[in-house]
Amino acid sequence: MQETRLDTGRIRAARQVIDPIFLDTPLYPCEALEPELGCAVSIKLETANPVRCFKARGTELVASRLADDGSRAAVCASAGNLGQALAWSGRGRGLDVTVVASRFATVAKLDRIRALGARLELVDGDHEMARERAAEIARRDGIRLVEDSLDIETCEGAATIGLELVDTAPSFDAVLIALGGGAMATGVGHVVKALAPDVEVICVQPLGAPAMTHSWRRRRVVTTDSADTIADGVAGRFPIPAVLDDLLLVADDAVLVQEASIIAGMRMLFDHAGLVVEPSAALGIAAILEDPGRFAGRHVVSIVCGGNVDMDAYHRWIDAAPVHRS
Amino acid sequence: MQETRLDTGRIRAARQVIDPIFLDTPLYPCEALEPELGCAVSIKLETANPVRCFKARGTELVASRLADDGSRAAVCASAGNLGQALAWSGRGRGLDVTVVASRFATVAKLDRIRALGARLELVDGDHEMARERAAEIARRDGIRLVEDSLDIETCEGAATIGLELVDTAPSFDAVLIALGGGAMATGVGHVVKALAPDVEVICVQPLGAPAMTHSWRRRRVVTTDSADTIADGVAGRFPIPAVLDDLLLVADDAVLVQEASIIAGMRMLFDHAGLVVEPSAALGIAAILEDPGRFAGRHVVSIVCGGNVDMDAYHRWIDAAPVHRS
Repeated sequence: MQETRLDTGRIRAARQVIDPIFLDTPLYPCEALEPELGCAVSIKLETANPVRCFKARGTELVASRLADDGSRAAVCASAGNLGQALAWSGRGRGLDVTVVASRFATVAKLDRIRALGARLELVDGDHEMARERAAEIARRDGIRLVEDSLDIETCEGAATIGLELVDTAPSFDAVLIALGGGAMATGVGHVVKALAPDVEVICVQPLGAPAMTHSWRRRRVVTTDSADTIADGVAGRFPIPAVLDDLLLVADDAVLVQEASIIAGMRMLFDHAGLVVEPSAALGIAAILEDPGRFAGRHVVSIVCGGNVDMDAYHRWIDAAPVHRS
Repeated sequence: MQETRLDTGRIRAARQVIDPIFLDTPLYPCEALEPELGCAVSIKLETANPVRCFKARGTELVASRLADDGSRAAVCASAGNLGQALAWSGRGRGLDVTVVASRFATVAKLDRIRALGARLELVDGDHEMARERAAEIARRDGIRLVEDSLDIETCEGAATIGLELVDTAPSFDAVLIALGGGAMATGVGHVVKALAPDVEVICVQPLGAPAMTHSWRRRRVVTTDSADTIADGVAGRFPIPAVLDDLLLVADDAVLVQEASIIAGMRMLFDHAGLVVEPSAALGIAAILEDPGRFAGRHVVSIVCGGNVDMDAYHRWIDAAPVHRS
């Protein structure tokens, strides 16, 4: 494998810095999913922690280094999960955290960011506008801008998931990773390709927010004019070149899935696995649903990366199955 | 503390025998619950494993010892979770497992028992009739009868949860434990009282199935003529004397909660923690809801012990909150 920006030794060292509450998350076969999916599925569950997503693995690294350097503040743009995670990691280390988000972001995520004590600023646009505004604030105030996927800590943090997969799982044929900015895909992909190169690394993105997948396929940055998906956590439009470079080295495939499949995946995880997941976390199941032949008889790990949902929307998604209504 | 049937050294040793997939489960603060509950609540999550409950900690010990002794078969009565767990643990060790259950048991649990390859026999009565029938089968076939709470492995297995609590949690004031036959209450209670004696051990049982709580209060076995609760996992009527003796040594309190509180607890865990739990797993939250003054300002650990529910019933329970319906 050619060299990515990541280093396996640094990723192992990162595990010593991250609060153990975010590490060694459950990894277990979910046989109840097999009849409908036609393959063995193991779940890597990233929702059973104080911020209900994997992002704190990265923000623990960021906040720890900031605190070591005597910094007092940081700012990030977030669809909601990075913001929660940075707020959590920063609070424990006395950092002032500012989060910039779209005013269309998931309300439950925004509420939790506020509850965790961060300053929340909303922009009247999408996530890309939030990124611009966060950069402005960082320049204005001279504070650290935490950029998801670009900043190596966010990738290294996510990459610790990969270490846990290769260290724990008996053997698996493929790992399905939600693809947005690329921190999780490049992080987990790096470790899997370094330590278990035969495992297929498959990134999954919504058809409605396909910028990184298009970029991966064309081997150059492709942006989109809009993003239209319920998977708010992966709805970027401007891929970061350095992250794409890494993704080109570690991903075996990048696939796009339809919104209906994402909803079906969420419902299946709820009905058969008892898991409340946000749309981004159902992308892996959606990919299996759209291409069952590809996975038939294989053992697939799906990373359930987050569970922060607005309950009104969640009820609409899962209640769409008439069989459950009397 | 006077001596219970349990031994902390044996419980530590048990951790070496149990499949790690059932150990070191998530333990994390769930701050989103605090505003409504008025206290700090940490969740010990026992649902993210192949049988979605804690019972395999005990059946791993049972099945391992049976396999070591060259046994080929075992039978148990179960409301559904022990049966799933024994089926899982037995399958991996080539044991023939028979599970006897009430025909009124939770369908999802019965389906999973069958799917895991166990022989399932239904009785036309409640869990106590299933216990009688399992004992008959064991006598007839000369095979091991696995009796939940009476058999020390079931208590030792559950007790490993207690080890993880005292080893991991920074500090907590009370632990809330679902009380049925008493394996979890005596197991966790033993460890907590041995290693963190200042932590209050509070057992919680449904008002509709109060036999063990009445027994604990009167310090002698009290049976009931019926059990009427949605918390199927704890709906016994005939407490086991030896288990009661242990419970008298380790429990600081045993409280009874109403069905409406159990439903409110399930809904709260769904809405604010994204957790799908079975009624028994909501008993702890129900206890806080019924007596908030007792817990105000304290740090409470609630063991979320299982997540196996019939989805039809679950939808009825959680959908009772009109705020979520459009």
